[in-house]
Amino acid sequence: MEREFKELKRRLAEISDLELVISLLNWDQSTYMPPGGGPARGRQMATLARLSQEKFADAAIGRLLDALQPYVDDLPYDSDEASLVRVTRREYERLLKVPPSFMAEYYNHSASQYQLWTEARPANDFAAVLPGLQKTLDLSRQMANFFPGYEHIGDPLIEIADYGMKASTLQHLFAELRAQLVPIVQAITSQPPADDACLHQHFPKAQQQELSKAIIRQLGYDFDRGRLDETHHPFMTKFSLGDVRILTRYLEDKLEEALFSSIHEAGHAMYEQGICRDFEATPLASGIAAGLHESQSRLWENIVGRNRGFWEYYYPSLQAAFVDQLKTTSLDTFYRAINKVERSLVRTAADEVTYNLHIMLRFDLELALLDGSLAIHDLPEAWHTRIQDDFGITPPDDRDGVLQDVHWFNGFIGGAFQGYTLGNILSVQFYEAALKAHPGIPDEICQGQFETLRAWLTKNIYQHGSKFTTQELVQRATGSPIQIEPYIRYLRAKFGELYRL
Amino acid sequence: MEREFKELKRRLAEISDLELVISLLNWDQSTYMPPGGGPARGRQMATLARLSQEKFADAAIGRLLDALQPYVDDLPYDSDEASLVRVTRREYERLLKVPPSFMAEYYNHSASQYQLWTEARPANDFAAVLPGLQKTLDLSRQMANFFPGYEHIGDPLIEIADYGMKASTLQHLFAELRAQLVPIVQAITSQPPADDACLHQHFPKAQQQELSKAIIRQLGYDFDRGRLDETHHPFMTKFSLGDVRILTRYLEDKLEEALFSSIHEAGHAMYEQGICRDFEATPLASGIAAGLHESQSRLWENIVGRNRGFWEYYYPSLQAAFVDQLKTTSLDTFYRAINKVERSLVRTAADEVTYNLHIMLRFDLELALLDGSLAIHDLPEAWHTRIQDDFGITPPDDRDGVLQDVHWFNGFIGGAFQGYTLGNILSVQFYEAALKAHPGIPDEICQGQFETLRAWLTKNIYQHGSKFTTQELVQRATGSPIQIEPYIRYLRAKFGELYRL
Repeated sequence: MEREFKELKRRLAEISDLELVISLLNWDQSTYMPPGGGPARGRQMATLARLSQEKFADAAIGRLLDALQPYVDDLPYDSDEASLVRVTRREYERLLKVPPSFMAEYYNHSASQYQLWTEARPANDFAAVLPGLQKTLDLSRQMANFFPGYEHIGDPLIEIADYGMKASTLQHLFAELRAQLVPIVQAITSQPPADDACLHQHFPKAQQQELSKAIIRQLGYDFDRGRLDETHHPFMTKFSLGDVRILTRYLEDKLEEALFSSIHEAGHAMYEQGICRDFEATPLASGIAAGLHESQSRLWENIVGRNRGFWEYYYPSLQAAFVDQLKTTSLDTFYRAINKVERSLVRTAADEVTYNLHIMLRFDLELALLDGSLAIHDLPEAWHTRIQDDFGITPPDDRDGVLQDVHWFNGFIGGAFQGYTLGNILSVQFYEAALKAHPGIPDEICQGQFETLRAWLTKNIYQHGSKFTTQELVQRATGSPIQIEPYIRYLRAKFGELYRL
Repeated sequence: MEREFKELKRRLAEISDLELVISLLNWDQSTYMPPGGGPARGRQMATLARLSQEKFADAAIGRLLDALQPYVDDLPYDSDEASLVRVTRREYERLLKVPPSFMAEYYNHSASQYQLWTEARPANDFAAVLPGLQKTLDLSRQMANFFPGYEHIGDPLIEIADYGMKASTLQHLFAELRAQLVPIVQAITSQPPADDACLHQHFPKAQQQELSKAIIRQLGYDFDRGRLDETHHPFMTKFSLGDVRILTRYLEDKLEEALFSSIHEAGHAMYEQGICRDFEATPLASGIAAGLHESQSRLWENIVGRNRGFWEYYYPSLQAAFVDQLKTTSLDTFYRAINKVERSLVRTAADEVTYNLHIMLRFDLELALLDGSLAIHDLPEAWHTRIQDDFGITPPDDRDGVLQDVHWFNGFIGGAFQGYTLGNILSVQFYEAALKAHPGIPDEICQGQFETLRAWLTKNIYQHGSKFTTQELVQRATGSPIQIEPYIRYLRAKFGELYRL
C-alpha cells in the first residue's frame, strides 16, 4: 500500500498547494495589493480554484481511496493513515456530488450579489438585493438537494461548515441556551450601563500595534511561523503549517477593537500552528469545522482575554503604553468597560452575553427561509420582530438589520452562523476540562503564563487537525458530548459578579 | 478563426495566471513571509511551475497554433494577432525541446548549489562549490544541446535571455567596446579619486523611503498599479499589467544605494506598466529580453538619474530632506560623488564606466567554460588574470572574485551576463533617438519633467511588449541596428567633462 499512499499524498499535496496559494492571493489583496491589481487577481484566484477542483475530482483519487480502504479498515480509527483516507474520502465524495457548472454559477452569482450588497447596505436598500437574495436561496436549496436524505433541508449546508451537525440538534441546543440567556440579558440591561468611556479616547495606532504583538506573542502565537498585518476586516489565513498569518484592524478611538481582534485571530492561528506537522499538505492539516475553530478564537479572546486575572497582569503595561489616556482609570473600571453588556443591533459589536442571541436569530431565520416557512420579502419584518422579542429594541432600518452581515450576500443561506454560538459553548466546555486537568491555570493567567493551557489545547485539540469530527473531539477532550451547562455556569459566574445578579 | 483564437487565449491566460502567481509567491518570500514559510513555499512554487509547463506543453496548443498559422500569414507582421501566434510558437517550440525530467534535475541542482554558495561565499571557499559548478556546466551544455545547429555552444543559452543574439555578434560588439573603454578607465583612474564622503553619512531610512517614492512617482512610475517595498536584493516583479511592484534596499550609510536602485527598478517597472493592456495574460504581455529590459532600467538610472540637470532640479529637495548631512555639500560635489569612477572588484558597486568591463569578463569566461577552452578548476585564476589586465588590480580572494555573483550558482553558465552591457549600450542609443525626435528633453529633465521622454519610450518600446525581437525593436525605434558609438560618445562627453579628459 506504500505506493498508493505515496501517490495519494502527492496528489493531495498538489491540491493543497493550489488551495493555499489562493489564500495568499487573497491575503495580498487584503493587505498590500495596489488598486490596479484587482481584475487580474480575481481571474487568477478563479483559475487556481478551478484547477484545484479538477485535480481533486480526478477519478484516480477515487481509485486510490478504494485501493487503500481494505488496508486502513484494519488500522485503528484514530491512526494517521486511516484518518487521512476517511477525511479525504468524505471531501472527495462531497465534491463529486456537486456539478462544476453549478459551482461556477454560484460563484458568479455570489460575486455580483456581494457587489450589490456593498452598495445596498450603506443605502439601506433591501429592495436592491432582494431578487439576488431570492436566487441565493434557490441556489442554496439546490446545493442542499445534491445531498438527498436529509432531515431538514438546512442539514447539508450546516454540514459543510460543521461536519456531523444537523439542524434539529442545534435547534434543541440553541433553544435551551436562549431560554437561559434572555432573562440574564434582561436582568443586566435593566441596570445602568457600564461606563466604557475609557476605551474611546485617542489611542495612536503604533502603540496599539506593539501592544497587540506583545500580547499575542506571550499567549503563544509563533511569529517565526506567522505575522500580524492590518486590514479592513480581521481574519486568519494560512499558507502552510509554517506560515499562519493574522490580520487585525486598528481604530484609534476604540482601544478594544485591535486588542480583542488580535487575540481572537491569534486563537484561530494557534490552533493551526499547533497541528501535527506530519499532516502538512493533506486534508488533515486544518483545524476542523467552523464551530470548533471559533471555540479556540473565543476561548483566547473571551475566557482568557476578557478575564480579570489576565488584566491584573497586563493592565500596568497598558497604562504604561497609554499614560495620558489611562492613568486615572482603575483596573476595575477598565475590566467593566471591556465586559460591558448592552442591547445593541450589531452582532460584531455585541458582548459575550448578547452575542448568541444575534446568532440564534440568524440561524432560525435561515432555516425558515430554506424550509419555506419564511419568504424572502418577509425577512426584514421577521428580523425586526425577533430583535424586539429578544432585546426589547427595534432596529430603525435594514442597514443594521437584515443587511448588516456579509454572509448571506457572498455565500449560501444556511450553515453560515451556527458556528459562532457553537464556538462560544465549546470554548467554555474545553476550558473547564483544561481546568479539571490543571487547576493552576487561572493563577498562571494572572502571571501572564499560558503554556499549561496552550499545551492542554494542543494535546487535546490542535495537534489532531481534521482527524476527528466536532463531536468526536469534544467527547475525547472533555469526556462528554456537547453541553451548554459549562457555558451558562461561566456566564452566570462572570456576569453575576460584574452586575451583582 | 475566432473560436481558435479564443481557445488559445483561454489556455494562455491559464498559463499566465500560474506564472504570475509564482512571481507573487516569490515577492512574498522576499518581503513579508515569516521564516517558517520557507519549506512549503518552495514546494508550492515548484507545483505551479510544473502545472504551468504541463499546460504550455499541451499538444492542443500546437494544434491551435497550426490552425491559426495560415490565417496570420496573411496579416501584417506587426499585427497583434500575428505577433501573438509568432511569439507563442517560439516559446512553445522551445519548451517542447527540453524534457521536463531535465528541468526537474536542473532545478533541484540549482537549489542545492545556491544553498552551498550562500555559505561558500562568506567563507571564501571555492572548493566547496567546485563539484557543483562542474555539474552546472554539464547541465548548461546539455541544455544547449537540446537546440542543435548552433554556431557557439553558448548561443542557445544566450538566446534564452536575449532572443536573436548570439555569441559571435556579442563578442564582436564587446571587443570594440572594451578596446575603447580600457583607455578611458586608465585615464580617469590615473587621477585622484572623486570625493564621495558626502554620500556616506547617516541617512535615516524613513526619509530615504519618502524621497525614493517621490522621485519615482515623478518619473512616471504608477503607484496605482504598483508599490515599493524593501528587500535584500532589489528587483522588479509583476503579477499583471495592473500590478507591477518594485523592491529596493535601504542602507543608512550609503545614500546612493536606495536612490539609484529605486530608479533602476522603476525603469524596469515603467516598461512593464507601459505595455498595451490588450496583451494582458498572453506571452506578449512582458518586456522582451534581458538586454532590452536592462536598457530601460539603465536609461532611467544613469542617463536620467545620474545627470547633472536632474540634480539641478532635485538637489534642493535632497538637501532639505537631509539638512544636517548635506547643507555644506555643493551640487557639484554631490554630482561628482554619484559619478565617481574607480577600479573596484565588485560588479554591483561599479560605476558607469567600469561596469561593462566586469560584465565582459564574465561573458568571456562563461563562453570559455562552455566551449571547453577553460576548465572549472582554472576559473579563479582566469578571473584574477583578467581583472589584473583590465583594472590593474588583483582580487585578494575569491569572495570578491569568482564567488561574487549569484548567477552561476542558481542558474545556467551561459547567457547570464550579456544583457547588462547590451542594456548599457542600448540605453544611450534609445536616448539619442528620443533626443533627435524631441531635443527639448534635457531641458525638461532640468525641470523635473519626464513626460516627453516617457511618452517616446512608451510609443517606441514599452507598448509593444514582446511583439518584436531586440534587433527589430532597435531598428524600428532608432532607425539603425545596435551600435556602440552613441554609448561611447555619451561616456566620453559625460566623463570627459567630469574628469577633464
